[in-house]
Amino acid sequence: MKLVECVPNFSEGRVKARVDEIASSISSVEGVRILDIEMDENHNRSVITFVCPIDRAVEAAFRGIKKASELIDLDRHTGAHPRFGAADVVPFVPLSGVTMDECVALARELGKRVGEELQIPVFLYGEAAMREERRSLENIRSQGFQYEQLKTAIAEERWKPDFGPSSVGKAGATIIGARDFLIAYNVNLNTSNLNIGKKIAKALRARDGGLTFVKALSFYLEDKKMVQISMNLTNFNKTPIYRAFELVKLEASRYGVNVVESEIVGLVPLDALLESAKFYLQLNGFKNSQVLEKKLWG
Amino acid sequence: MKLVECVPNFSEGRVKARVDEIASSISSVEGVRILDIEMDENHNRSVITFVCPIDRAVEAAFRGIKKASELIDLDRHTGAHPRFGAADVVPFVPLSGVTMDECVALARELGKRVGEELQIPVFLYGEAAMREERRSLENIRSQGFQYEQLKTAIAEERWKPDFGPSSVGKAGATIIGARDFLIAYNVNLNTSNLNIGKKIAKALRARDGGLTFVKALSFYLEDKKMVQISMNLTNFNKTPIYRAFELVKLEASRYGVNVVESEIVGLVPLDALLESAKFYLQLNGFKNSQVLEKKLWG
Repeated sequence: MKLVECVPNFSEGRVKARVDEIASSISSVEGVRILDIEMDENHNRSVITFVCPIDRAVEAAFRGIKKASELIDLDRHTGAHPRFGAADVVPFVPLSGVTMDECVALARELGKRVGEELQIPVFLYGEAAMREERRSLENIRSQGFQYEQLKTAIAEERWKPDFGPSSVGKAGATIIGARDFLIAYNVNLNTSNLNIGKKIAKALRARDGGLTFVKALSFYLEDKKMVQISMNLTNFNKTPIYRAFELVKLEASRYGVNVVESEIVGLVPLDALLESAKFYLQLNGFKNSQVLEKKLWG
Repeated sequence: MKLVECVPNFSEGRVKARVDEIASSISSVEGVRILDIEMDENHNRSVITFVCPIDRAVEAAFRGIKKASELIDLDRHTGAHPRFGAADVVPFVPLSGVTMDECVALARELGKRVGEELQIPVFLYGEAAMREERRSLENIRSQGFQYEQLKTAIAEERWKPDFGPSSVGKAGATIIGARDFLIAYNVNLNTSNLNIGKKIAKALRARDGGLTFVKALSFYLEDKKMVQISMNLTNFNKTPIYRAFELVKLEASRYGVNVVESEIVGLVPLDALLESAKFYLQLNGFKNSQVLEKKLWG
């Protein structure tokens, strides 16, 4: 079955009944499975993670956006996290049997419907971006440029939305896109020297010459008395887990420091872990379809 | 979902229509998925591999045994492989969320039904054995003691079946049990010296002082010009894949020989590969339920 993940962010993190109502509108589409709902009071924002067959994804996301536009008034919304709209960011993520191109198509189809039927301005981002400068979410909205600023700026050519009107109502604007699955991956080291951690994180992350699809920071874990290299792996197909792990290990060895353990936060796609098993066991000819459960469920 | 695998062996390997009819009777139970059907003309025997929810397993296996008893006459059966009955051996294998104890219970429930309702003598083997000497299949029937010999021997106390009558009809007797999943695992080495391969295989296998749940032989692969260590891992929970792999690597290093690649033949349960990924990545706190697909399908 062709499965897509969708992780819409909504500008409501305090009134549970509202978030539940949005989630219900999403799961009212047959085949949708909601995996997780996270509410953040301080950010006044919630993140709903759902998975569904590819042909239901646009309808499910659309219903969530529509319901959010009915329930949330941006003129009355405050919170620590920057936001453009009631439904703020809606990324599609390819899961099993789905390509990035298909997710890009979903994002654009949804964008068109939201713009035309709900009259909400839509900006496309990530792999679905139609303007190169809109590829990165940070380039679109930030602490200094969000709903309040967009209200007037949207009349300018550079803020013309990809779909929908060039004016902002109480539901704000929605940023819709496609991106790869993100793995939150940490490696803990047997040192309490944060300077070593910072050097290792720097060696790992893309922008300082490390691995292309790794974002890395370093923290000191008070409870464990260990330094942690905390990473986001933004494309596990191209930069697999084992490569990040082995590179941390290598850079740590430079300081006589060893890896104590590593940690995956939250969910991880099966194929990402299979890739590591195949690497270490040198399983050259292995096909992922040999996994019994894939035969049952694929 | 609690899933069980069942791998019944039937004494028909030549007439495809009969094997198909047996398979159909099994898959007539809702929720049953047939993964594989292998027919062997020389053995005159077929192996059907199916998977189903635990509460359907006994009924599905029962229907297969019943159909086989209607279609196969042991008095007219010849073949290279030793056999006791039309349905010869029926093992249950724990898959996801199922314990060995539950598979033992299935085997005994099925044995009771087959004995009482079909009046076929049943011997329990493997983990389901009720007499210690019946634990090993080789101890029950062999080239020298099969259907023909059992016909008279069954009257003796030591051949009293665990269920059913102490007499054998044309459907013969059925050996029912529970065992762990078997992984066929090979490691190829960059040597053509079979003597080295034999020493490594010996170091690996249980009976010569190696790993408890490993059976190992060594072959020379003509096409690849490599020596292969060919293993059966009979309990991947207790002797995981990575341990067998690393021990081959270690023993090979003694001779300056390296591992070129390894190979899993046929299907492998997801958890067996996850265990290797967890070992190498030092994922100490990882729960298998963090695998996205498990959340979707579990």
